Amino acid sequence: MSEHPLDPIFHPRGIAIVGLSSSPTARPTGFLAGLLDQGFDCERIYPVNPRASTIAGLRCYASVLDCPEPLDHVISIIPRAGAADLLAQCIERRVRSVHFFTAGFSEVGDPELAAAERAMVAQARAAGVRLVGPNCMGLYVPGAHVSWFSGAPREAGSVFALSQSGVNASAIVNGLVERGARFSKCISFGNAADVAAPELFDYAASDAETEAVVGYLESVRDGRALFEAVRRCARVKPTVLLKGGITDAGARAAQSHTGSLAGSAAVFAALCRQTGALQAESMEELLDLTVALTTQARRVRGRRTILIGIGGGFSVLSADAIARAGLDLPELPQHTQDALHEHVPAAGNSVRNPVDATFIDGPRQRVHDAALEILAEAPGFDAVIAAVDGPDAPPPDPPPVAGASGRRDRPEGVGGSELPATAPPPPVTAAAPPEPVPLVSAAFFGELQDRTGRPLLIVRRARDANRSNGFTVQAYRRGVAVFPSVPRAARAVAQLLAWHERRVGLPELT
Amino acid sequence: MSEHPLDPIFHPRGIAIVGLSSSPTARPTGFLAGLLDQGFDCERIYPVNPRASTIAGLRCYASVLDCPEPLDHVISIIPRAGAADLLAQCIERRVRSVHFFTAGFSEVGDPELAAAERAMVAQARAAGVRLVGPNCMGLYVPGAHVSWFSGAPREAGSVFALSQSGVNASAIVNGLVERGARFSKCISFGNAADVAAPELFDYAASDAETEAVVGYLESVRDGRALFEAVRRCARVKPTVLLKGGITDAGARAAQSHTGSLAGSAAVFAALCRQTGALQAESMEELLDLTVALTTQARRVRGRRTILIGIGGGFSVLSADAIARAGLDLPELPQHTQDALHEHVPAAGNSVRNPVDATFIDGPRQRVHDAALEILAEAPGFDAVIAAVDGPDAPPPDPPPVAGASGRRDRPEGVGGSELPATAPPPPVTAAAPPEPVPLVSAAFFGELQDRTGRPLLIVRRARDANRSNGFTVQAYRRGVAVFPSVPRAARAVAQLLAWHERRVGLPELT
Repeated sequence: MSEHPLDPIFHPRGIAIVGLSSSPTARPTGFLAGLLDQGFDCERIYPVNPRASTIAGLRCYASVLDCPEPLDHVISIIPRAGAADLLAQCIERRVRSVHFFTAGFSEVGDPELAAAERAMVAQARAAGVRLVGPNCMGLYVPGAHVSWFSGAPREAGSVFALSQSGVNASAIVNGLVERGARFSKCISFGNAADVAAPELFDYAASDAETEAVVGYLESVRDGRALFEAVRRCARVKPTVLLKGGITDAGARAAQSHTGSLAGSAAVFAALCRQTGALQAESMEELLDLTVALTTQARRVRGRRTILIGIGGGFSVLSADAIARAGLDLPELPQHTQDALHEHVPAAGNSVRNPVDATFIDGPRQRVHDAALEILAEAPGFDAVIAAVDGPDAPPPDPPPVAGASGRRDRPEGVGGSELPATAPPPPVTAAAPPEPVPLVSAAFFGELQDRTGRPLLIVRRARDANRSNGFTVQAYRRGVAVFPSVPRAARAVAQLLAWHERRVGLPELT
Repeated sequence: MSEHPLDPIFHPRGIAIVGLSSSPTARPTGFLAGLLDQGFDCERIYPVNPRASTIAGLRCYASVLDCPEPLDHVISIIPRAGAADLLAQCIERRVRSVHFFTAGFSEVGDPELAAAERAMVAQARAAGVRLVGPNCMGLYVPGAHVSWFSGAPREAGSVFALSQSGVNASAIVNGLVERGARFSKCISFGNAADVAAPELFDYAASDAETEAVVGYLESVRDGRALFEAVRRCARVKPTVLLKGGITDAGARAAQSHTGSLAGSAAVFAALCRQTGALQAESMEELLDLTVALTTQARRVRGRRTILIGIGGGFSVLSADAIARAGLDLPELPQHTQDALHEHVPAAGNSVRNPVDATFIDGPRQRVHDAALEILAEAPGFDAVIAAVDGPDAPPPDPPPVAGASGRRDRPEGVGGSELPATAPPPPVTAAAPPEPVPLVSAAFFGELQDRTGRPLLIVRRARDANRSNGFTVQAYRRGVAVFPSVPRAARAVAQLLAWHERRVGLPELT
């Protein structure tokens, strides 16, 4: 495959950081820390500061002209006043790209500063140097060992993220990483003076490492170019867009943030509708839609939903939320109800739909797994939303054994409910040794979803998730989508269904 | 004040628990653990089980007839088959109330079981014994040392919560406790066979310990009685209602949960509108509205809002969310912008509204406090929504000193931004000793709100909150409302404003 014009930006062989402080080195922070944290070859990281000989243990150079080969990419964190001179040096040195973290250009609202930005772009383009920014965080490309921050996974994935805002770029990365997703490339491109959204959508569409595309945009400088690029991209890859500055107040904020002149909400909604992209209305929705699109949840093709819940009132409110989202909760067929009754006590429970297949297990409740197996196989339904409680199985899960669930430490529990009736009263004392606690196992859900072909949407409330998000990440790897609430899971499914309906005639994205 | 008929239920002097397991005692769980955890006098807790002499170290009795004085309240966790006999014993013993955790009555959908429930109610009423439930968790009354679960605060507060669902009762208690609120009384009353919502609203309205009332309802058995009781309650105390079973799917769930025949969404919305109650559409909204109503946020009287944000793209999306909620973000007057400019660098920031008064502090950003002081005093605005980052100040905060903020460890920070421009580049290395980290202090916000009279709504994203919720709880005690996101804060304010408009002519709730 021939190299895309933007490809070098995402694969720099050597990087200079210009403007690093020369203060005594305790531990590196910022961009330098991001590169070291990702394992970028430290022989090819070139700190530039004329007043230091080493920074963070790395040899320091007086200017980009003094850096050794190879030097492909320059990160500028110097004040604006020096930006034009730095660009001239970069051109002389024939670098491939310059990322200006440096801000203070068109976003300030001063015509002279906007003109200075335009002049720099013209100069760079004439010399074949690409500009990222100004006023942005730049690159996170795990496969190239590049990151604008420490703590990002080194592991690469299939999501391409583009965001004008640095804060929102980080919100996308952090928010999706804890949901289990990993990235092919992320780019925060600020004022979009040179590298801008249309070219990035085209790059993502052609990038073999990218399977889904997610974008946060503020400006729409060339609406026609954006429309065409999003259409080309969304035709072949699931594409989620969030537009900031969609209200008057938001537009004012966007203008001072990235110098963007925001378009109207209606225009952007039409762009998404007509291009086959998915429109998110908030950062939460962007995360939820991306999770749904990159797991088996994307295969949901109808509204007939089963809800298996944590308990009475929780299920009532969840059923309301599912119905409000536009999904159906049809009553289960009698034979399914009969099968459930073998596992679920009648009183205080329902086996009609929603299903309350929970029992008190000390302070915890969990979905009764036998019930979940029955529901995943019930004919005529499109998806199962299952709210689960209880501690995670220890990650990583063991490799699945063919024909077995790979689960451990799961006693045969006696069915029970929040409110037992004819069942024996709950135990008042903890026996010694305590009964093993049932574990929520990603391997079980993954195996069940694979075997039945029925998309599972697991709801794991934030207070139940352990801090490592072990279950959520493991589930995602098994193709199982996990959401923090029933309303958010239901809304994501409803949005995907509407999107599928609009995409009739476009290639199927499987 | 004369005693309300329900008052004895909330202040039992002696409690029997019938149906406790006699298995060897390691540590108590369930209702017994709740009472012990609250410090209920263990000489007045009477386990009942004919096959045990002690349970959890407490003397055990063969029946309620054998328990010593005083015995006001009986908790039944026996199977349904024994419920009628137990009630007969309770009547003979002249207890004041029986709480049937025992389920399996009208919620099952069997006419005979519903008739059995009605017969028990008739029998109890004739004898002057009140029934709580069946099919519920019963009481959490910290002032009376009663709780259905361990870990609830012993500290009492001013919120009265009533919920047919036990799961949702716990969601209300846990959700509000971590937001800082404390309770006068909570009751989970399940099928509402005897003690039901209308009487509870009347009780709450007259209860001197209660300042706000929050309810989760499934059934509306006597719409007129409920309407009149809510109207009497909402007239004198802020009242928040959440109705489960408001869709067809939710209604089916509610019917099998508490045997409730749900009314339509429109009818319930009208009830809230006409009685002066606030309607929540989800558990999250119920929590947010209760926090807003029990802090100085309840004093917001107009839409002119100031947003002070964490950073560029975050502020853009937050401004969109505030505008969508129906609030205004008018541009700040020039003299306020000028005052802000002394503290906030121009580039990458806005001082118009929203205000991005943040700076990079290692990996953290925080609201610049000088800017917040200016904004809290800006004339012509109704509220300030401030998103804050950074670690909590150590709770508890010191008592405020008159004329001083009571804050500690707050260096004079140099203004900065997510994306500095003409400002010096961010430090690359951590100097030794590290610069003291600015702390997010509840005392500062409380003092500022008290001094200026301007309601502050603090937004603290979940990932920033420490696990003890120290800041959130301390802020609540200072009358400062804390929300987990800008959209939720904005929505709560908008709902309160609509509620105020509807309440014209009713008593002012200050």
